[in-house]
Amino acid sequence: MIAAEYIGNKSFKLVTAAEQKPAAGEVKLAVGYVGICGTDMHIYHGVMDQRVAPPQTIGHEMSGTITEIGEGVEGFELGDQVVVRPLDWCGTCPTCEAGHTHICQNLKFMGIDSPGAFQKYWTVKARTLHKLPKTVDLKKGALIEPLSVACHDIRRSRLKAGEKAVVIGGGPIGQLVAAVAKSVGAEVLISEVNESRREFANKIGVESVNPLETDLAAYVDEWTGTKGADVVFEVSGVQPAIEAMTQVAGRRARIVMVAIHSQQPPIDLFQFFWKELELLGARVYEAEDFDWAIELIASGKVDVEPFISSVNSLQSIGDAFASMDNNPQGMKALISCNEE
Amino acid sequence: MIAAEYIGNKSFKLVTAAEQKPAAGEVKLAVGYVGICGTDMHIYHGVMDQRVAPPQTIGHEMSGTITEIGEGVEGFELGDQVVVRPLDWCGTCPTCEAGHTHICQNLKFMGIDSPGAFQKYWTVKARTLHKLPKTVDLKKGALIEPLSVACHDIRRSRLKAGEKAVVIGGGPIGQLVAAVAKSVGAEVLISEVNESRREFANKIGVESVNPLETDLAAYVDEWTGTKGADVVFEVSGVQPAIEAMTQVAGRRARIVMVAIHSQQPPIDLFQFFWKELELLGARVYEAEDFDWAIELIASGKVDVEPFISSVNSLQSIGDAFASMDNNPQGMKALISCNEE
Ligand SMILES: [Zn+2]
Ligand SMILES: [Zn+2]
Ligand SMILES: [Zn+2]
Ligand SMILES: [Zn+2]
Repeated sequence: MIAAEYIGNKSFKLVTAAEQKPAAGEVKLAVGYVGICGTDMHIYHGVMDQRVAPPQTIGHEMSGTITEIGEGVEGFELGDQVVVRPLDWCGTCPTCEAGHTHICQNLKFMGIDSPGAFQKYWTVKARTLHKLPKTVDLKKGALIEPLSVACHDIRRSRLKAGEKAVVIGGGPIGQLVAAVAKSVGAEVLISEVNESRREFANKIGVESVNPLETDLAAYVDEWTGTKGADVVFEVSGVQPAIEAMTQVAGRRARIVMVAIHSQQPPIDLFQFFWKELELLGARVYEAEDFDWAIELIASGKVDVEPFISSVNSLQSIGDAFASMDNNPQGMKALISCNEE
Repeated sequence: MIAAEYIGNKSFKLVTAAEQKPAAGEVKLAVGYVGICGTDMHIYHGVMDQRVAPPQTIGHEMSGTITEIGEGVEGFELGDQVVVRPLDWCGTCPTCEAGHTHICQNLKFMGIDSPGAFQKYWTVKARTLHKLPKTVDLKKGALIEPLSVACHDIRRSRLKAGEKAVVIGGGPIGQLVAAVAKSVGAEVLISEVNESRREFANKIGVESVNPLETDLAAYVDEWTGTKGADVVFEVSGVQPAIEAMTQVAGRRARIVMVAIHSQQPPIDLFQFFWKELELLGARVYEAEDFDWAIELIASGKVDVEPFISSVNSLQSIGDAFASMDNNPQGMKALISCNEE
């Protein structure tokens, strides 16, 4: 079968690899579509070479069809459409024992710490699978993983119908967070400096504002009748957002930290005291987030169609990454892995 | 009647003031005992002169007895022992309407923004009162307010029996937080650099450690079997605590920000992501915190007796403040306001 290997330095090599027979508890999937994630772009730029150890097949936002089932696997049939929750947890650490396997103390992320989905067939543990209804096409299925990130963020925030949420940063995850927030009946505002991303927000029915042109704090103050936002999602990863998040948050607001800040930014703790704010870290997703994401797409409550900005074949994976690199405003580029 | 007025520059003046007749909805209290709070010490040092506007009677950690009841007040009788929850909320802002009157957008703090309890009689709104059982003496009653702060912090943390909590900072509030944490069945460790405060912790049955001598992170790692603390209370207000709090916190841990950091310290947001931490701001208390604090003292579940380090008459309030100033390691100095 054909597989794409990231070989370092913004390069992929197409290789012929052996199909891997599923061991006990595993299944073999014919990969349908795989989305290119921000993390994949980081890997592409070489900044994660030590963790990824090229040559390595990466990719983790995928949909596929079961083609072979290992011993002892129950609940799945050949031909089932599925998506993979790409987490490999140990099951024995105190965190796993407490039920939080998604932040397992020995967590491995499939497609980063172990081979990923940019290949024709992918053999994975059955415990990572979620069934995708036949009514959902596999292209949309590749959006389940990033949508599950958004679902996890929303669950962490305890956002309710009628509440007002500010999403700082309108990249793919920020827009998906906004879409899920809307689906629960919240009012949503995206703060985003990039015009094409603001236009995208408007296309999916979400109000947007440019914080370089509009005083965001004053805008939110008026929007909420001085109450402030009930929930703030920080998805941008930039320093001005750290200042904005405590400003726009109302009393008892929840701030979900979606972006990964590797610096240690100064934070206005006085506002945490004064307004009794909450800051909630959010990492990947849990099984219920995948179930929710599938339900949102299957029911049509969230339409991920507009998020698909391109579909390329596995053969042209290098071009697809290069084109994402040149146009970081694109939402989601998919790679089709099962064409002849 | 006699009243003490803070007149600025570490000074009090004893004056003869008119007793204030309770208006509708108010009661007049014979003040029993009033504790000296850290905030009172700040006022004493002059740093809050703009807000307090001397000459002003301050004091808010009090117990007393009802001596006169205004029109329309129900549920109270002459002679009832009570404590005052010293918050004056507007009742009409969005935050009050949402039920969070303790962080009202127009909140006034009695004893800071309006006259306080360092006087023989204090007339207050009946809605601020909580009944103190006759079995609780008024000295202990003066500890209800700071104990309510601790109860609020514990409620914010959702601390449960069997969990492990680290309290950073062993001043009066830190020690009360530890005592309430113990009362819910949690295991508690206080991190405190001052020896006499560590000894106090041991006296009330709480383990303590000196973070200048012991590697706190390593200690907590071993104490919790690599799991990390379930809850961290930052009560110290110093920069090393900000670093320590994310280090000792286990996955999904809750960090309650009890100290007021007026600087904006750099915070390790990566740990918030990686361990899905929560940061919870906590400010004053709600009615249920007072109810809980009264129950804890009345039932003997928390013994506040050891916290009372001195009792002085209102006539010697100046000496009492000066002595707190010279010995900041003392826990709680009380002023007796109703002696002849
Ligand atoms: Zn991803
Ligand atoms: Zn684990
Ligand atoms: Zn106080
Ligand atoms: Zn109010």
